[in-house]
Amino acid sequence: MLDDATMQAWLRVALDEARTGLAEGGIPIGAALIGPDGHVLGHGHNRRVQEGDPTLHAETVAFRNAGRRRSYDGTTMVTTLSPCWYCSGLVRQFGISRVVIGEATTFTGGHDWLAENGVEIVMLDDAECVELMEQFIAANPTLWMEDIGDDGEQP
Amino acid sequence: MLDDATMQAWLRVALDEARTGLAEGGIPIGAALIGPDGHVLGHGHNRRVQEGDPTLHAETVAFRNAGRRRSYDGTTMVTTLSPCWYCSGLVRQFGISRVVIGEATTFTGGHDWLAENGVEIVMLDDAECVELMEQFIAANPTLWMEDIGDDGEQP
Repeated sequence: MLDDATMQAWLRVALDEARTGLAEGGIPIGAALIGPDGHVLGHGHNRRVQEGDPTLHAETVAFRNAGRRRSYDGTTMVTTLSPCWYCSGLVRQFGISRVVIGEATTFTGGHDWLAENGVEIVMLDDAECVELMEQFIAANPTLWMEDIGDDGEQP
Repeated sequence: MLDDATMQAWLRVALDEARTGLAEGGIPIGAALIGPDGHVLGHGHNRRVQEGDPTLHAETVAFRNAGRRRSYDGTTMVTTLSPCWYCSGLVRQFGISRVVIGEATTFTGGHDWLAENGVEIVMLDDAECVELMEQFIAANPTLWMEDIGDDGEQP
């Protein structure tokens, strides 16, 4: 099942979400939760700006939109960007089996930690994902920093 | 500021939320985000059952209810129960400075990992919090397992 065409189709769902978020004036990150049979269980995009809600990262929105489930065994989270610690923690806690990542060039979250803890990580290094975030961050650096909890102070 | 009476007062906000959740038929975990000046920024309780939304852990609801913020430096998350990986990831990503925990007897999440990464952890070992969760888990084992992503299968 995990051929390149399948992963590109999943990434396309996430990328379409990211572009929808951008068109809404939001942060352009999209994600989808894929079931063990390859079908999309839920998809969504970052909605911090749109709803004034800092918990609405793309991955958590996709997870929410998949509804309540008894097991995440065999599921895949596909996301346009390396998942932050918050979203990585979601993946680990709920036992999501695999994360397919558009890019980790503009931001690196917890995907190495997930790999160390038994989650399969697939890094696509997708140029379209990189370009989308590079342009967004260049134009909205403060908003981007807010979304990842970077207050600009030295820790 | 961090005297015992202050921490007990914060825990009381979280415990009141947990009891509200229980009365609604939900999972009895409550939390609050406290500002650097000691005032409550947001509070909430687990709403998985009430809203059919698996992302609504007590800590994420409290964080959401505090609204958008540019910095979490100096804030405290007080929670009735040790934060799961999802909620621990939230604390780490957004730079919440301290976590005050009612108990880690019935469930142990990522608080040691947070401590290793510079978050101040205060463990209260509160008997009321333990009793609340023990009774809930005994009466609702499957619901509780669902909330922490335990599908009952061996990993």
